[in-house]
Amino acid sequence: ARPKVGYLYSGQSVNNMISDFIKNLKVENIKSSPVIVSEDTTVYDAIVTLFLEDVGTIYIHSGGLLTGVASRKDFLKIALGKTDIHKVPVGIIMTRMPNIAYVKDDDSAYDAAAKIILHEVDSVPVVEQVCAENGKTGYKITGKVSKTNITRLFFDLCNDKLGGL
Amino acid sequence: ARPKVGYLYSGQSVNNMISDFIKNLKVENIKSSPVIVSEDTTVYDAIVTLFLEDVGTIYIHSGGLLTGVASRKDFLKIALGKTDIHKVPVGIIMTRMPNIAYVKDDDSAYDAAAKIILHEVDSVPVVEQVCAENGKTGYKITGKVSKTNITRLFFDLCNDKLGGL
Repeated sequence: ARPKVGYLYSGQSVNNMISDFIKNLKVENIKSSPVIVSEDTTVYDAIVTLFLEDVGTIYIHSGGLLTGVASRKDFLKIALGKTDIHKVPVGIIMTRMPNIAYVKDDDSAYDAAAKIILHEVDSVPVVEQVCAENGKTGYKITGKVSKTNITRLFFDLCNDKLGGL
Repeated sequence: ARPKVGYLYSGQSVNNMISDFIKNLKVENIKSSPVIVSEDTTVYDAIVTLFLEDVGTIYIHSGGLLTGVASRKDFLKIALGKTDIHKVPVGIIMTRMPNIAYVKDDDSAYDAAAKIILHEVDSVPVVEQVCAENGKTGYKITGKVSKTNITRLFFDLCNDKLGGL
């Protein structure tokens, strides 16, 4: 498919053009499926899920709302220690809200890359703000943007594979 | 610093421009320092090095030449098993040449992203072909390009931080 982005520019630097282009790419168009487990999943089962789904980061929910994140790095650290990974729930070792960088569908590919670089994480969850039953607001996880997504986007930028974006 | 890339284009699609720009960025200008251990390093010591250097992939050499690669994913898998990581050398569990995707200084940022995506790895070593003592050719490791480097490049593309590239 031919991309819809064949605008003609003149008198603008390449940097500005690339910058404009990337800032117009929306997260909802580049996000991939998140892998989500509940807080009471054991660390061992969370690691098995990580391998079976072949992802680098797992998101953790409670009552359907984002409560935590755990990465390969977190799991490797735990696996080296004396923790009984068959008994301890992932909710104990995860990074917990509000210490999680996230993006929303309307944010740009640039926003996602910026959060990944500035927060030194492998991926950010894509969330949607919702009202929980208790009246508090929370975040539903609708996707993720990882370094893999950004690298693939970078790759696709050179291959005319961005038709429609 | 202002980038030197303020060429003016007209009559070209944005995709072509971005593609040209990215294909002109050389690996030698975006690579970062590799973390390298020898084949007889224990798996445990290799993992400790991974954490202390805060990298996702470790390169393994023998006689100064690249012989293997081991990632967080590889180490997590081993740490879950019954392997005695304090005794087993990393040379036993690593992915071994010739099954390693690599790039050279003269390759482009695009080539590096393509290898990372197509080989489904987190990073590629940057190598230089050399003659070993036994007369065979081998590869000296001079750097690495990871998904982090590509994500940072993507981020910098929007921030005019590519002065000189």
